[in-house]
Amino acid sequence: MTETNQNGQTLPRVWHFALDPFCRRLRLALGEHGVRHDLVDVRPWRPDADFLALSPAGDVPVLEDVDGTVAAGIYAAAEYLEETRGTLAGGQSLLGESPAERAEARRLVMFFDHRFYAEVTAPVLMEKALKRLLPAELGAGAPDTARLRAALARLPDYLALIGDLAERRGLLAGNRPTLADLAAAAHLSVLEYLDALRFGRQEAAKTWYQRIKSRPSFRPLLADRVGGIVPPAAYVELDF
Amino acid sequence: MTETNQNGQTLPRVWHFALDPFCRRLRLALGEHGVRHDLVDVRPWRPDADFLALSPAGDVPVLEDVDGTVAAGIYAAAEYLEETRGTLAGGQSLLGESPAERAEARRLVMFFDHRFYAEVTAPVLMEKALKRLLPAELGAGAPDTARLRAALARLPDYLALIGDLAERRGLLAGNRPTLADLAAAAHLSVLEYLDALRFGRQEAAKTWYQRIKSRPSFRPLLADRVGGIVPPAAYVELDF
Repeated sequence: MTETNQNGQTLPRVWHFALDPFCRRLRLALGEHGVRHDLVDVRPWRPDADFLALSPAGDVPVLEDVDGTVAAGIYAAAEYLEETRGTLAGGQSLLGESPAERAEARRLVMFFDHRFYAEVTAPVLMEKALKRLLPAELGAGAPDTARLRAALARLPDYLALIGDLAERRGLLAGNRPTLADLAAAAHLSVLEYLDALRFGRQEAAKTWYQRIKSRPSFRPLLADRVGGIVPPAAYVELDF
Repeated sequence: MTETNQNGQTLPRVWHFALDPFCRRLRLALGEHGVRHDLVDVRPWRPDADFLALSPAGDVPVLEDVDGTVAAGIYAAAEYLEETRGTLAGGQSLLGESPAERAEARRLVMFFDHRFYAEVTAPVLMEKALKRLLPAELGAGAPDTARLRAALARLPDYLALIGDLAERRGLLAGNRPTLADLAAAAHLSVLEYLDALRFGRQEAAKTWYQRIKSRPSFRPLLADRVGGIVPPAAYVELDF
């Protein structure tokens, strides 16, 4: 996958927005598979024609492989990566080996990507970041602190669940890293970038997060800087 | 997969709510794979302990295979079915053969399951059905007709997109049925049950829907009856 295609592209491309948790999960998965890639920044609220040609609904992330294959949206992109770089392709699986393990990993991915995203990540992202980045007509403004507080009040229950799974299984879906770990860590890392991640007394969840965060796949995310929003010092530290 | 397991279960079980579009998609996929199965009714707003033991987050559908494997939530269940009854298992794929075809089918599944669901199916389901079925403390009441109208006003654009894809490709993701067709048809069939599906002049979308609806996998859905809500006569007709 290192040949140059007719557009002069030599590496797979990821079209992404650095604070989007789904884009983060895809980059983590690429890192776990050892797939070097180029990044193309997208502002999802202002998609250009090149991006919409790949992702007609405007969803990020998009994975554009060197052979021209396009996988748009996290569902297509993550499964494409598993099919072309995972077990079927002689590589490592990020879902597990048996159908039962894979079902459990996918159940947890959906849990974090739907429920946690709706209840915690999306409101925190809107109030702490998008309201500073969006144009006025799309909702720029002062953060709604009540909404932010309500979202963060839901965090401890999720951290308790993460800690409980990690204590029983080693990691979230078993004792090897899966997309479930990457999904959950991607969401938490968005909160952390926005200085909204507090573990309190949830030591098991904190230990799990440190373990995932210290993987080499995480390193590129720690260098992200988005639209003048500076992450707290702890964001780039692995010992926090 | 027809042996009896230790619980006396001889067929895979689907835990479902008949008006949920994700449950409908799973049942259609089972039908396409020729997998006979038993149904267990769930009221998602009142999950019992047996159900929560299988689906801790309370998501429907759950696919409980005869060997005891549990795939909870549509993402896990649909991919489990593809892995255990699709190409890898010597059967037919509902995603397509090449990684590029599969990426396109999954992109469209996400489009219908996220965007169409949020903008159309979910509000129609809430206003026309759940407000009659839910207990008072969970939101029973008179339908919000403005919200219902707004949701239905978005339908024509989606039907135009369906018609355009079907005219160019035969079916939505290509010329063979995939989960993209089943997802879109599952959503439309919920609207149809609730007498909220109007094609207007969108002949291409109507032709596509008739074609999917006339597949044998659709037949069990036409017999569904939910909580005293009677579908219109056209719901059970294949020529409409």
